[in-house]
Amino acid sequence: MPFKTPYYTVIFTNRLKELDADQKKHYDILSDRMVELATKEDGYLGIDSVRDDTRAGITISYWSSLESIRKWKSNTEHTFARNKRDTFYQHYQVKIALVEREYEFSLS
Amino acid sequence: MPFKTPYYTVIFTNRLKELDADQKKHYDILSDRMVELATKEDGYLGIDSVRDDTRAGITISYWSSLESIRKWKSNTEHTFARNKRDTFYQHYQVKIALVEREYEFSLS
Repeated sequence: MPFKTPYYTVIFTNRLKELDADQKKHYDILSDRMVELATKEDGYLGIDSVRDDTRAGITISYWSSLESIRKWKSNTEHTFARNKRDTFYQHYQVKIALVEREYEFSLS
Repeated sequence: MPFKTPYYTVIFTNRLKELDADQKKHYDILSDRMVELATKEDGYLGIDSVRDDTRAGITISYWSSLESIRKWKSNTEHTFARNKRDTFYQHYQVKIALVEREYEFSLS
């Protein structure tokens, strides 16, 4: 589903460390919680997320306003504090972008 | 490596069909060729690409100008024509976004 442009997107590129089963379970809980917090914000539009077998991941969330992103960031920082991030991620980058144009192709 | 803002990004979200070995080989060649064509454009900055075991993929390329994206799009359309896309993708979406801000965290 295409969103009405212009809108904002948060691009999160990352690679997880090699986590043991308990760490992975903890990570999955925190990760699900971040998505849940996003869906509660008025300006949340959607999310796409992929992780491959080398533990590289890209998560893209879509937002109608920067203000919604700010609120989400503030809420998630209590849940997924910086020191916890150090535990899970080998590296990550966050980019905030304005989507000006999009086009879609789908057979489904 | 963070890029100097503002810059552009092309966000390609997709899911491949279930391809047989020959189709997959053909797809990989075309896919590599698209990346190769990108690296030849002056405004190309970089690329991130992840595909999971459900065949869902996200590829994000980074560009210093819209003009470079237009040239790449024009060149790739000869290589990876619309009818070939229908062969490989269950669905895909392309978004062109302006990256206004980014921040980075890395242990490596």
